[in-house]
Amino acid sequence: MKAEIITIGDEILIGQIVDTNSAWMGQQLNLHGIEVYQVTSVHDKHDHIMKALADAEKNADLVLITGGLGPTKDDITKNTLCEYFETELIYFPEVFDHVQSLLSSRNVTINQLNRDQALLPASCTVLHNSAGTASGMWFERNGTIFISMPGVPFEMEAIMTEEVFPRLIKLGIMQSIVHKTVLTLGLPESMLAEKIEKWESALPGFIKLAYLPSALMVRLRLSAYGTDQQMLEAEVDKQVKELLTIIPEYVFGFDDENMALIIGRMLVKNSKSLAVAESCTGGNIAHFITANPGSSAYFKGGVVAYSNEIKIKLLDVPAEIIEKYGAVSQQVAETMAFGARKALNVDYSIATTGIAGPDGGTAEKPVGTVWIAVAGPSGVKSEKFIFRHNRERNIIRSTQTALNLLRTFILTDNAASK
Amino acid sequence: MKAEIITIGDEILIGQIVDTNSAWMGQQLNLHGIEVYQVTSVHDKHDHIMKALADAEKNADLVLITGGLGPTKDDITKNTLCEYFETELIYFPEVFDHVQSLLSSRNVTINQLNRDQALLPASCTVLHNSAGTASGMWFERNGTIFISMPGVPFEMEAIMTEEVFPRLIKLGIMQSIVHKTVLTLGLPESMLAEKIEKWESALPGFIKLAYLPSALMVRLRLSAYGTDQQMLEAEVDKQVKELLTIIPEYVFGFDDENMALIIGRMLVKNSKSLAVAESCTGGNIAHFITANPGSSAYFKGGVVAYSNEIKIKLLDVPAEIIEKYGAVSQQVAETMAFGARKALNVDYSIATTGIAGPDGGTAEKPVGTVWIAVAGPSGVKSEKFIFRHNRERNIIRSTQTALNLLRTFILTDNAASK
Repeated sequence: MKAEIITIGDEILIGQIVDTNSAWMGQQLNLHGIEVYQVTSVHDKHDHIMKALADAEKNADLVLITGGLGPTKDDITKNTLCEYFETELIYFPEVFDHVQSLLSSRNVTINQLNRDQALLPASCTVLHNSAGTASGMWFERNGTIFISMPGVPFEMEAIMTEEVFPRLIKLGIMQSIVHKTVLTLGLPESMLAEKIEKWESALPGFIKLAYLPSALMVRLRLSAYGTDQQMLEAEVDKQVKELLTIIPEYVFGFDDENMALIIGRMLVKNSKSLAVAESCTGGNIAHFITANPGSSAYFKGGVVAYSNEIKIKLLDVPAEIIEKYGAVSQQVAETMAFGARKALNVDYSIATTGIAGPDGGTAEKPVGTVWIAVAGPSGVKSEKFIFRHNRERNIIRSTQTALNLLRTFILTDNAASK
Repeated sequence: MKAEIITIGDEILIGQIVDTNSAWMGQQLNLHGIEVYQVTSVHDKHDHIMKALADAEKNADLVLITGGLGPTKDDITKNTLCEYFETELIYFPEVFDHVQSLLSSRNVTINQLNRDQALLPASCTVLHNSAGTASGMWFERNGTIFISMPGVPFEMEAIMTEEVFPRLIKLGIMQSIVHKTVLTLGLPESMLAEKIEKWESALPGFIKLAYLPSALMVRLRLSAYGTDQQMLEAEVDKQVKELLTIIPEYVFGFDDENMALIIGRMLVKNSKSLAVAESCTGGNIAHFITANPGSSAYFKGGVVAYSNEIKIKLLDVPAEIIEKYGAVSQQVAETMAFGARKALNVDYSIATTGIAGPDGGTAEKPVGTVWIAVAGPSGVKSEKFIFRHNRERNIIRSTQTALNLLRTFILTDNAASK
């Protein structure tokens, strides 16, 4: 079973929106054992859509199409689908009822454009859209299934989850793929590859290994393909266990885990609490932490001390220290970390102070200079970093680096207490 | 000039990473007047890459390829390119010198995998990668230009900016496209379309209009295509001005502007300051605000009051109010907003308290229930929302909604003071 994704919309091609739909669909199909062969993003133009449909029919057994189904005039997908499948638009009263009830629950008056959303191709199976007014459509031709859905992510996700997956499962469309991703940190890709070369070479042929480097870490993804799901899982587990004996100090998590989640787990285990004092990261560390469900079990909160006044008033940083060493300094970072621990009454704290850019840099402290401090029951640890990126990347790198500094700090505390 | 983007890598197709490279390239090419005809994401398999290259050569004058150029074994792009362009890998000493000096500046020892990065196709023009060890490559065949780059975003961006664009400009590869995006809020897509129908129908043929709905707003993108850049700009400006006379109250910004930026501009204009008191949004509002350069001019900071203890201690919310009405209540939201105004000594404040989920919901206050309050010199305004999404979307919706509530609150203040 090979799937292909076609996303329709000029806004993707001119980069006005990032295509997150394909990633979501790829992930979900993969979990269901369906391989995505290709993703193709095309203009919302008749000829281009027709060509993409024909190309996909040649390669794929399942074609997922998103985009171009809103009520307004730039949407030509529906008419193009009618032409491709040699059918015509007819009126579906149950779709009209749904559109009407959905809009009235939102206090919106129905108009002609909404009425037209009940016009759908006669030969398709209509897929109910519980989250919006544009229905999904299911076509079959020459053994290939085509599914068209709106491009609004949560509407597409609702149709996939509630309508498409149950049908695909019923049709017995399945294949076994087992993935496991090992999150490593502290070794660049090439050194990591060298360290695990023997292990990698000895992997069985049905397990593929991929290196996925990003800003701060390298993810190692093992993918096993076959018919016996249990055997695949057992073999992947065995290989991962072996890998852990080779590079134990560089592995910090698995699969979709994130650093904040792993820290949270360590804190819960030891019944410890956490707070943040953020200057240059401006709330992003707190956001990363609270993005994880259940974070209220260990995260009490924080102070976004963007101005010096707040550093002084809420975190008890002495004005003289700021004056003497500057806001971006080891002394201020450490005092902020102490202040957060005290003001928010927690075991551990993280503090950041730096110059995210684009303005504010000096020769001595260029844009990207960041002091990070972590404090805990055993004392304080601080480190200076110079990221030299743009504002957005400086904030993200500072966030990730601060969390990792806390992670290693807690690990040292735990080791010492054993 | 038609461009096509090919992204190589299983990690995109299985949705482990979101393809942001294509969006960036599409945006940049578009600014340079080059239309992206199609984006195709393929597996890192020899046959699939060969097919994608051949297909792209048929359609496009410029083919941008990203991915598959790291030092490790899962990278087969380089050998496939050699086969496609009928050439072979040769040693480039200047590339070796660059790899060596870059790694030594990072305190990494060079190994065989890094050494192999100096092996590149004999027939290509090597594109210097100032941000990493994998070089870009420029090929030409039958009038089509092919450019291969690594998939790490900031490395691709460095090669595009420093090597590719200057060459394309030198070659005179240009076409005029003018875009203007109008950000609207408060009208669903269909009602908006109805309101501006006459204006839309009267648009000249060379201007295309697209509706881009997202969670909270509908963006209207005008795109003018032609040879006379100045004429296109003038015509787009004229049409936007006319649109503003039709729906003035629904337009809040243009192009890449965001709500926090627009609020910042209003605050700077009136010399007012801002702080936040976030419970359920967990620092995300502060993050949205501080993502904008120059936000320190009006944003003093905030308190992430995730636990009740912090609400009481740092924001002066009386414990009795939390006990009587619950943490998720109008009273707590408003007291938090007042508390932030006072504790952080600012003119305006935003406060959020709610249940982001997945746990913590009750029949009376289901997951997604959020109270938002904004306070300012003229008093306080609060509103209850029920978003009923997952945790991630509830946090984003709460953030956007809170910022919009503040925007309208300030607008009312400004109107009253006139």
